[in-house]
Amino acid sequence: MSVYQAFTDSLRGGGPLFSAWIGMGEPQIAATLARSGFDAVTFDMQHGAIDFAAVTRAAPLVLAAGKPAVARIPVGEFATASRLLDAGLSAIIAPMINSADDARALASFCKFPPVGGRSWGPGESRFSSGLDNAGYLARANSLLPAFAMVETREALAALDDILAVDGVDGLFVGPADLSIALSGGALMDPQSAEVEQALAHVVARCRAAGKTPCVYAVSPERARVLAQAGFAFIAVSGDGALLRAAADSAVKTARGL
Amino acid sequence: MSVYQAFTDSLRGGGPLFSAWIGMGEPQIAATLARSGFDAVTFDMQHGAIDFAAVTRAAPLVLAAGKPAVARIPVGEFATASRLLDAGLSAIIAPMINSADDARALASFCKFPPVGGRSWGPGESRFSSGLDNAGYLARANSLLPAFAMVETREALAALDDILAVDGVDGLFVGPADLSIALSGGALMDPQSAEVEQALAHVVARCRAAGKTPCVYAVSPERARVLAQAGFAFIAVSGDGALLRAAADSAVKTARGL
Amino acid sequence: MSVYQAFTDSLRGGGPLFSAWIGMGEPQIAATLARSGFDAVTFDMQHGAIDFAAVTRAAPLVLAAGKPAVARIPVGEFATASRLLDAGLSAIIAPMINSADDARALASFCKFPPVGGRSWGPGESRFSSGLDNAGYLARANSLLPAFAMVETREALAALDDILAVDGVDGLFVGPADLSIALSGGALMDPQSAEVEQALAHVVARCRAAGKTPCVYAVSPERARVLAQAGFAFIAVSGDGALLRAAADSAVKTARGL
Amino acid sequence: MSVYQAFTDSLRGGGPLFSAWIGMGEPQIAATLARSGFDAVTFDMQHGAIDFAAVTRAAPLVLAAGKPAVARIPVGEFATASRLLDAGLSAIIAPMINSADDARALASFCKFPPVGGRSWGPGESRFSSGLDNAGYLARANSLLPAFAMVETREALAALDDILAVDGVDGLFVGPADLSIALSGGALMDPQSAEVEQALAHVVARCRAAGKTPCVYAVSPERARVLAQAGFAFIAVSGDGALLRAAADSAVKTARGL
Amino acid sequence: MSVYQAFTDSLRGGGPLFSAWIGMGEPQIAATLARSGFDAVTFDMQHGAIDFAAVTRAAPLVLAAGKPAVARIPVGEFATASRLLDAGLSAIIAPMINSADDARALASFCKFPPVGGRSWGPGESRFSSGLDNAGYLARANSLLPAFAMVETREALAALDDILAVDGVDGLFVGPADLSIALSGGALMDPQSAEVEQALAHVVARCRAAGKTPCVYAVSPERARVLAQAGFAFIAVSGDGALLRAAADSAVKTARGL
Amino acid sequence: MSVYQAFTDSLRGGGPLFSAWIGMGEPQIAATLARSGFDAVTFDMQHGAIDFAAVTRAAPLVLAAGKPAVARIPVGEFATASRLLDAGLSAIIAPMINSADDARALASFCKFPPVGGRSWGPGESRFSSGLDNAGYLARANSLLPAFAMVETREALAALDDILAVDGVDGLFVGPADLSIALSGGALMDPQSAEVEQALAHVVARCRAAGKTPCVYAVSPERARVLAQAGFAFIAVSGDGALLRAAADSAVKTARGL
Ligand SMILES: [Mg+2]
Ligand SMILES: [Mg+2]
Ligand SMILES: [Mg+2]
Ligand SMILES: [Mg+2]
Ligand SMILES: [Mg+2]
Ligand SMILES: [Mg+2]
Repeated sequence: MSVYQAFTDSLRGGGPLFSAWIGMGEPQIAATLARSGFDAVTFDMQHGAIDFAAVTRAAPLVLAAGKPAVARIPVGEFATASRLLDAGLSAIIAPMINSADDARALASFCKFPPVGGRSWGPGESRFSSGLDNAGYLARANSLLPAFAMVETREALAALDDILAVDGVDGLFVGPADLSIALSGGALMDPQSAEVEQALAHVVARCRAAGKTPCVYAVSPERARVLAQAGFAFIAVSGDGALLRAAADSAVKTARGL
Repeated sequence: MSVYQAFTDSLRGGGPLFSAWIGMGEPQIAATLARSGFDAVTFDMQHGAIDFAAVTRAAPLVLAAGKPAVARIPVGEFATASRLLDAGLSAIIAPMINSADDARALASFCKFPPVGGRSWGPGESRFSSGLDNAGYLARANSLLPAFAMVETREALAALDDILAVDGVDGLFVGPADLSIALSGGALMDPQSAEVEQALAHVVARCRAAGKTPCVYAVSPERARVLAQAGFAFIAVSGDGALLRAAADSAVKTARGL
Repeated sequence: MSVYQAFTDSLRGGGPLFSAWIGMGEPQIAATLARSGFDAVTFDMQHGAIDFAAVTRAAPLVLAAGKPAVARIPVGEFATASRLLDAGLSAIIAPMINSADDARALASFCKFPPVGGRSWGPGESRFSSGLDNAGYLARANSLLPAFAMVETREALAALDDILAVDGVDGLFVGPADLSIALSGGALMDPQSAEVEQALAHVVARCRAAGKTPCVYAVSPERARVLAQAGFAFIAVSGDGALLRAAADSAVKTARGL
Repeated sequence: MSVYQAFTDSLRGGGPLFSAWIGMGEPQIAATLARSGFDAVTFDMQHGAIDFAAVTRAAPLVLAAGKPAVARIPVGEFATASRLLDAGLSAIIAPMINSADDARALASFCKFPPVGGRSWGPGESRFSSGLDNAGYLARANSLLPAFAMVETREALAALDDILAVDGVDGLFVGPADLSIALSGGALMDPQSAEVEQALAHVVARCRAAGKTPCVYAVSPERARVLAQAGFAFIAVSGDGALLRAAADSAVKTARGL
Repeated sequence: MSVYQAFTDSLRGGGPLFSAWIGMGEPQIAATLARSGFDAVTFDMQHGAIDFAAVTRAAPLVLAAGKPAVARIPVGEFATASRLLDAGLSAIIAPMINSADDARALASFCKFPPVGGRSWGPGESRFSSGLDNAGYLARANSLLPAFAMVETREALAALDDILAVDGVDGLFVGPADLSIALSGGALMDPQSAEVEQALAHVVARCRAAGKTPCVYAVSPERARVLAQAGFAFIAVSGDGALLRAAADSAVKTARGL
Repeated sequence: MSVYQAFTDSLRGGGPLFSAWIGMGEPQIAATLARSGFDAVTFDMQHGAIDFAAVTRAAPLVLAAGKPAVARIPVGEFATASRLLDAGLSAIIAPMINSADDARALASFCKFPPVGGRSWGPGESRFSSGLDNAGYLARANSLLPAFAMVETREALAALDDILAVDGVDGLFVGPADLSIALSGGALMDPQSAEVEQALAHVVARCRAAGKTPCVYAVSPERARVLAQAGFAFIAVSGDGALLRAAADSAVKTARGL
């Protein structure tokens, strides 16, 4: 069974899957995290200093470790989503999907006709799928999920419309941006009461629509809480945060503090 | 005579020109193919794992071999087209141009006023053209062709409108996507009957409009057929395919199979 | 005081600040120019062969030298503006802002709510600001300026509307493109009479609106003139031009010419 | 069973194994050739434009395809051999081993004590071996072969002494250099009568010493001949040659020549 | 006071200084660890997948954080030591210095005449030192320490001779290799009884010679012990190990294990 | 006529040829300087932050401009000299050649048998030479010069012995190191009286031996003086120095200072 199939099956099973979150363009970080206990590795091209070239260098090492490689694209760069799928990525997370129109734009780049208008050219992806051309064309739309980020008031208002878009396989909540949006720019607090309420709402509406609820967790502790809240795919903090925490702890131990 | 002028003259002469097709970001591949019998080298930034940095590293080696360097941009990334022209590329192929509006957007990034709104800053390109600033401004629009890809039902329906857009110098058929589109996502077959019909139509309409018919050929044998069908610029398979075929053949010979 | 604060203060003081202008992706060039007498270093991602990866490699060396690192993005690539701000850049210059709508799009990617919709994730930027999360959210919009390029007839016509957009902190004139636009594509002359008139107009309207007038100068001599004309931020020629001039002069001296 | 074990077993079985030969620093070339019918992929750091960074980017893709990644180091750069083994390479080929002293220097960098003085730090290699620290220390010397290149008159004269060095696991003939050496610089002919004689001699002496005879073949046809002559590991031509031949053939077919 | 001066002063003060240890070529890892509580950042070019280009990209970010950047070179690659010092590194660690001759070779590349034969060309280093040419020539030998690794039986036997070499500023024990050497290849145990004895001996002989005792610690806990044993500079584990440990812990927490 | 032949002819004609001197790994710097009035471009791998990968990226752009690309290798890294020649470099400068033995080591890596032991594999170099295999083998030794740096008291003492080594095509004086050596480490002054005397001596002995006198000039003015003193190949300052001087001048002009 291909990594793609295994990942899709797990998501359909409801998870929870915990993903590493990568913002540095070093392939060895991706390899190291893929070999650890994480279920997936997600590359953050929106806020990380990591571009298409970096992801295509690192993603094969994740697949080689038998784990799915996911990418969050920059806002609105849907053509990059297509290129990442061709390059072997397992799933796409698109930020700031605030309307059904945004969601359709995402689907149009992630799904082949008749769902969308993804263009044919799946080099690495077809190889990793283990499928021939016909099989890949028939299966890719269901095998490679596209997740729409919900992180504004507009998105919350359009939630069911977004979920109804064919080709959108799940919602991914960005709690930090959502807290800023819900507070009118006054507050960044991914655990504000309004955010907590929205999180529960997203899980419920996703389940109702038969789609996957996903979320970013600012810490492993928070990841556990969000898993218990019903999220199926949970991105945990980041490589930088892991490294900083490990360095702090190491230095303290070394100094006997 | 500059590489640009020679390329444009050959296209106007009706070709057929055969182009190598590159999807790997290795400058030596570009140099090797540019020194071979191909008439041009095309970089595939849509489906290849090759970005702006890779193209700007490799393209100078193509020009140094006296061949034109062409680039296919990702869907809708027209600003990249401008940057590539500045960097010395000879021509742009833009995928998924499905309407006259799409075509005008392409032209607006590839042509200086009054045709389009390309911004001034042609570093390598002006150097390679051998022209001074005034000469470059006067000549660039006709010297650096922009090709619109026809690969959907919408594009076929709007064919003459697209051809009528000032600044679009030719059409480039993507037979694989076209076959998927024409079959409603059921079939990827770049030689389906519907595609064959469309190919003949594109050649005829281009010739009628005085513009250049271009196409992608899945193999050298297919390239020969498409040249005979009247296409002036034919991209032949890809670096990966060439390498795979050569490796298979080498291994068989070595093993005495 | 952070580099950001110092830069913003200087701009508000009216300048003139002179910025180096970089089109080559070599971090040492950025470091060398940042350590020279320039007040800032600007990376030209529109016409230079320099991409996001190159800027994120080079910008930290500019900050380390205590100078602000500015970036001009390619036309319309506003998501890149957000990523650059996250990566520590001090200011954004966006080309071809031809209407208030264009200006709002720029602001939406450069400013947090309620001004825009910039997404939260300011890794390097927050570090360099010396602020905590709450402080950064509160201060970033005023600390990291966004400049809209005025370089078409449409932009001149919409000048006050663009200036009125919340989140646009100044105008940056592109005299070369403006000369082409004003001549209908007939002439590239950054010192044409029409351009000179427009330059004075931009300074006046910026001052009236309490926003920063910025401009590109084709030479150091021209930079001096533009400073005297009231521009607060003046980008001076480019790394390539500096190097060419220095090489010519060195060779002449060596040959005794 | 690890790739290392499988490779060593095959070599001990006498082969013949046919290896791709890579001189370009593009990971996708390595991946493509590793997925083809070749038994191994060899990186040529002596004559190819490929350095340590390039090999460490590409080698993981070879291992991921289940094939051994071999490296030829530059003349005398034995410290690089150690670093390559740490990075996961399966075997080392060292050029210009002209004496038992040269051979001992090679062994000292490729083998742990008591055979050599290889330093401990096998990150990727231990991971790929599937062994723990103690297992790796005990097994690495026999699991990761080192091949000494025979390509001078001195080397031929010292053949048995070189073969007798503990830690040298086989000889690798460089027929081009050998032909130059044997002709006193007059002739480059990897199939000269003197070379043919030397090749047979090397096979015989290796077999007598229980070590592996290896060779470079200038073409697939030549590889077949050398396999029949008894060589166990045969590197076949190169990526550049494969690409050139494939391009020539493609262009001829396209032009109907 | 320059970073170099501060580092040298601290070492003379007896430390203990704790250094991060880097084996991945990602500048952001270096920046992250430099900004943490570590006193220094050491790049491992011997066993890490990190070359000269990677170190020169990352080291400036360490200096920008006000921390010294140290490099361990591959075995015997002393010319690289010179290049690293020119590029701004604060100190050199050279592995496998087994005799006074080895030590003199190291000094000859790290120190200017009359101590050694380091060649003049200190671009970044002179800049970071804050010294002019004359000052740098006069001060560099004492400002930029060179440490000789003691990790074989031969080195232990020659300890005082190595310490007596002018230009060697301290010894750096490699406990893993030392344990292998002392056990004749039978055992890798950086805390074997023989190693412990050697460690105490090295501290004593360094103190007697007025030079700096340095060591690698396999964990933060071990670093604390070694600091208490009198080592002045202690490299703590590695970036990979930090990341692995942090990932394991994060996953366990997320899963509620 | 190939660039190699033209360069060798000019050197034999006595010059003076003035070379740019590059220490930054940016291909566009090399291209810019190659297109300027300089006669050659030299890459400084000893003191510049530029490695083999950087040189092989940049050198083709120098050759494309019709200029020879020269490289100075790090001390004693003669295998790199071979690799650079294979990669298309026109000449090698080797630092710290202090004896006839050092000179023979250099020649052994730069010249084919019977002069040296350079290994066969001249990919780019043969292509750029325009020669076939036999022609290249016959001509390369005289076509691709190797220069030995004279920069110590030992080298001066062994001058005629070094010049007598077959395969050494000229001497290249390093005045800075020579001044340090001649002053016992007390002084860095490339124009000290002792250095001036040595410079005249080197020119005289080279001329007597029919070999090429080369030198590094700290400024264009100094280059002129050294040309008049009889040097045939003169490297002029560096890319960093050119850029710094140009920036200083630009800023002064802009500020009206
Ligand atoms: Mg967000
Ligand atoms: Mg297509
Ligand atoms: Mg402009
Ligand atoms: Mg050889
Ligand atoms: Mg060690
Ligand atoms: Mg020198």
